[in-house]
Amino acid sequence: MLHNKTILVAGGDLRQAHLSKLFSSANRVYTLGLEKAEGAGGTPTTLSELWQTGLKVDYIILPMPVLSDETLVNTPFSGKKLAIDALLDCANPDTIVLGGRLPPALIQKLEERGLAYSDYLDREELAVLNAVPTAEGAIQIAMEELPTTIFGMKILLIGYGRISKVLARLLKALGAEVTVSARKFSDLAWIQANGFRSAHTADLAEAITGTQLIINTVPAVVLNEELLSRVEPGCLLIDLASKPGGIDFTTANRMGLKAVWALSLPGKVAPITAGKIIFDTIQNIEAERRQAHE
Amino acid sequence: MLHNKTILVAGGDLRQAHLSKLFSSANRVYTLGLEKAEGAGGTPTTLSELWQTGLKVDYIILPMPVLSDETLVNTPFSGKKLAIDALLDCANPDTIVLGGRLPPALIQKLEERGLAYSDYLDREELAVLNAVPTAEGAIQIAMEELPTTIFGMKILLIGYGRISKVLARLLKALGAEVTVSARKFSDLAWIQANGFRSAHTADLAEAITGTQLIINTVPAVVLNEELLSRVEPGCLLIDLASKPGGIDFTTANRMGLKAVWALSLPGKVAPITAGKIIFDTIQNIEAERRQAHE
Amino acid sequence: MLHNKTILVAGGDLRQAHLSKLFSSANRVYTLGLEKAEGAGGTPTTLSELWQTGLKVDYIILPMPVLSDETLVNTPFSGKKLAIDALLDCANPDTIVLGGRLPPALIQKLEERGLAYSDYLDREELAVLNAVPTAEGAIQIAMEELPTTIFGMKILLIGYGRISKVLARLLKALGAEVTVSARKFSDLAWIQANGFRSAHTADLAEAITGTQLIINTVPAVVLNEELLSRVEPGCLLIDLASKPGGIDFTTANRMGLKAVWALSLPGKVAPITAGKIIFDTIQNIEAERRQAHE
Amino acid sequence: MLHNKTILVAGGDLRQAHLSKLFSSANRVYTLGLEKAEGAGGTPTTLSELWQTGLKVDYIILPMPVLSDETLVNTPFSGKKLAIDALLDCANPDTIVLGGRLPPALIQKLEERGLAYSDYLDREELAVLNAVPTAEGAIQIAMEELPTTIFGMKILLIGYGRISKVLARLLKALGAEVTVSARKFSDLAWIQANGFRSAHTADLAEAITGTQLIINTVPAVVLNEELLSRVEPGCLLIDLASKPGGIDFTTANRMGLKAVWALSLPGKVAPITAGKIIFDTIQNIEAERRQAHE
Repeated sequence: MLHNKTILVAGGDLRQAHLSKLFSSANRVYTLGLEKAEGAGGTPTTLSELWQTGLKVDYIILPMPVLSDETLVNTPFSGKKLAIDALLDCANPDTIVLGGRLPPALIQKLEERGLAYSDYLDREELAVLNAVPTAEGAIQIAMEELPTTIFGMKILLIGYGRISKVLARLLKALGAEVTVSARKFSDLAWIQANGFRSAHTADLAEAITGTQLIINTVPAVVLNEELLSRVEPGCLLIDLASKPGGIDFTTANRMGLKAVWALSLPGKVAPITAGKIIFDTIQNIEAERRQAHE
Repeated sequence: MLHNKTILVAGGDLRQAHLSKLFSSANRVYTLGLEKAEGAGGTPTTLSELWQTGLKVDYIILPMPVLSDETLVNTPFSGKKLAIDALLDCANPDTIVLGGRLPPALIQKLEERGLAYSDYLDREELAVLNAVPTAEGAIQIAMEELPTTIFGMKILLIGYGRISKVLARLLKALGAEVTVSARKFSDLAWIQANGFRSAHTADLAEAITGTQLIINTVPAVVLNEELLSRVEPGCLLIDLASKPGGIDFTTANRMGLKAVWALSLPGKVAPITAGKIIFDTIQNIEAERRQAHE
Repeated sequence: MLHNKTILVAGGDLRQAHLSKLFSSANRVYTLGLEKAEGAGGTPTTLSELWQTGLKVDYIILPMPVLSDETLVNTPFSGKKLAIDALLDCANPDTIVLGGRLPPALIQKLEERGLAYSDYLDREELAVLNAVPTAEGAIQIAMEELPTTIFGMKILLIGYGRISKVLARLLKALGAEVTVSARKFSDLAWIQANGFRSAHTADLAEAITGTQLIINTVPAVVLNEELLSRVEPGCLLIDLASKPGGIDFTTANRMGLKAVWALSLPGKVAPITAGKIIFDTIQNIEAERRQAHE
Repeated sequence: MLHNKTILVAGGDLRQAHLSKLFSSANRVYTLGLEKAEGAGGTPTTLSELWQTGLKVDYIILPMPVLSDETLVNTPFSGKKLAIDALLDCANPDTIVLGGRLPPALIQKLEERGLAYSDYLDREELAVLNAVPTAEGAIQIAMEELPTTIFGMKILLIGYGRISKVLARLLKALGAEVTVSARKFSDLAWIQANGFRSAHTADLAEAITGTQLIINTVPAVVLNEELLSRVEPGCLLIDLASKPGGIDFTTANRMGLKAVWALSLPGKVAPITAGKIIFDTIQNIEAERRQAHE
């Protein structure tokens, strides 16, 4: 666990605010651009204050997404602008920069400045742990949008990756009849061994029949016009896949189907949990860095 | 199963609409005061049409709540008024009247008219089946109101009746740490045997400590000022108990605690499911009536 | 919790042994007739020693079953005989006697001697908590007797009392397709709300078809010749009901069906757990006695 | 699905017997060396009969393990010897040979004869599906060996591979407190996301404390003398790992610890299920072979 470090938490939303609070119990934490975020920890500061005091910053923690445009840190909970270059000027040669999905241009800057950096979004454990708030977010959407209970609902999950693994388990626990589609025999075996109905991707048309909720997790257009034509009226479509997504939304809308593209759910439905996950992941990153240096 | 009957579904919301559709697959169904409700089945009609045709009605199915005031049937999905007396004039001596929580004044009218009637809200199986949408509704509220996942959340349920039994199971399945409080040793034994933590009602103050969500199901003010003073900031209170409820809301508000009194959840969060439950319950009522007559 | 008491644990099996150990952490415990039982706590003693020292015994804890014949305490883990009358001579007017299913003749003796007594088998919470080891014992038998996994198995539970409630939940969690039969609509509603398939008792013949394991929990002969003739070859029958049991074993054997009558499972499959349950129940009994005296 | 094929099922135990029955519903099945196995399907035959009739065999299905010694097929349910060479003489150039863990010497023979072959033990889906009977077998052993219920038991699983994933889920569903140890952060994240307690492999000594059941799934000696010295008396050790296993059994025995090395559980505890899994896997193998030829 990081302790006795000087940590500068810059920008972001309630996730960063909560993260700043978690770090502050064992470290000296300063925050920039989080004035309006409830639940932040540490000491609010400004760039000029930082320069004046010459504070030796061990870590700069950037938000996710990192930037709001090419030059400014993403600061939705602040009335002020925060330039990324000015922020990096607070770093010293030993400062480590952490952020979620660092843009290539920023990485270039960091390397030019000789700063160590890590992208916590590259970490497998963060993706795994984020599957839980993502799954809960999808369940919340289904509860809000559908006039029936999850209990007894026929649900089709497309794909059996991280999110689907958690989501299928939770939906079944709530009493849904869950079918999961996949292509590989070993995935189909896992789907069965975990107690779900399995459908081969080639048999999606059949699996769609009679389904009240379809949740896609595959980042490739799976639900094309032909398959969408099999979707029953009243069925809800939720797409959890990142771009290009897995649903042909134009066609779905034309057909009068209700389709929701739900991205970045952890930060939206459970920012405190999402902040804690980033906090834990940063601890892992630094534990590995320490081990590598030993 | 009722079949080949003439059923008049009068007033109500999407529950009645769905119920009219379910009955219409095997019966002649007429609807009154459901013009604007999506998903209704059967044939919309009017009182004058009914009188003119002299239709022999076997069942009149009233909504829940039955009346909007002393004389009018509750018809939120209609622009017209429907007088209960005029409606009952459509009955013949063999007509059976069904409704949810029939008011005493209405029961008196039915008895004066010599009409058989049943109140489906008196049925234990309806209360049991309604525990599922109620529990899901409570989970939806918690997901919407709290910035953390249900997964890993410390939750206290007060009381171990029908709703709490279902809710505790679902919350645990979602990964929460569930404590349930009760007074009787046998309830405490069930709480343990079902895998929850148990707390004696006398120890609620202790059980409240560290809890992020408290859900009351006991219809008596349990969460009084003393106990409310133990609730941690950020904790959400949900009251599922009917009047007088189990939370001292005035005090809770004064203390700045977030408290939600959530009543009649099945009709709100899952009207289709709730309509199906009423449909099934009416089938049971009539099965028993047939058996009693044999 | 009992503490600082003098407790005499007499006879019994590993349950009594474990119970003596649990009590010994806060009380003065003496044991009689448990010489060969592993895991006993307290101090082994003899009747003559007790008389000589004139020890003032607060509690005498008898086993379950209490007696091996009309005059002797049930002492399967001892080479010596222990007469119940001689044992009771160690009591003083304030001694409280506890046991499991006290025989009427013994109760008469206790009343003649003016001794307070309680039967822990009369306690609802003990019956509830014992449902867990009973359910696990039934699962163990099914695992041992059948050449298939519980996962994917079609299982019929007859009755929805305490044991069946726990057993149905565990079997479903292991991946079985569980059907539970009951007669009351409210029980059938609970069966459905808990996610099992329900079958009305009148439809048992149909429910039996295709089933690989049938577990009866109803203490009345349910599985008569007609129903047994519907049982498929290879299906295992387990009867958990006390006498007269729910299976016509003579007919089942004649038909070549494999039927197991499994009684008193907690003491057999999980004596340590069963001893702990008796220990907890005695604590409850004494807590209530204290409250009643206050 | 294979159909209209001529399939020769040779040797093996109840798994092969059940597999022969499953194939026989859509194929011509002949069995060799299964005379004493209950539940076999198809037609028992002999090598001489096969030669005389000149039957054109499409598939030869060998058991697991394939051979009992270098020259004989493993035929535990037969009184006769079956030479592998004589058996292969029944093949024609198009015959496909399937078996579980084909020995290198046998593979050489098959290649010399120009016969196509597949080893179903190499298939990931078989390993996944076998995790279920393996997990149930481990639970059965724990139930048989321990005097407490799984419910409430503190259990440590070492490793988070296929078997552990299923086993942890089932044990938790039975009410155990399950800790799983792993080394990778992503595995630890999965362990947490699935609701188990996680322990880093480096912290095993601590995780062992207070545990009543330890199940190893890692095929490398993890439980060495130092860790074994932390195991509490009465704790049961089960090793599910193939050779060399994960427990130092010599030391465990010397310390008086109860340790069980449980290998090949599917065939032992659930041969019918295990036979069905091999059957399904062979169907997948042949589906892929057909696709590859198209």
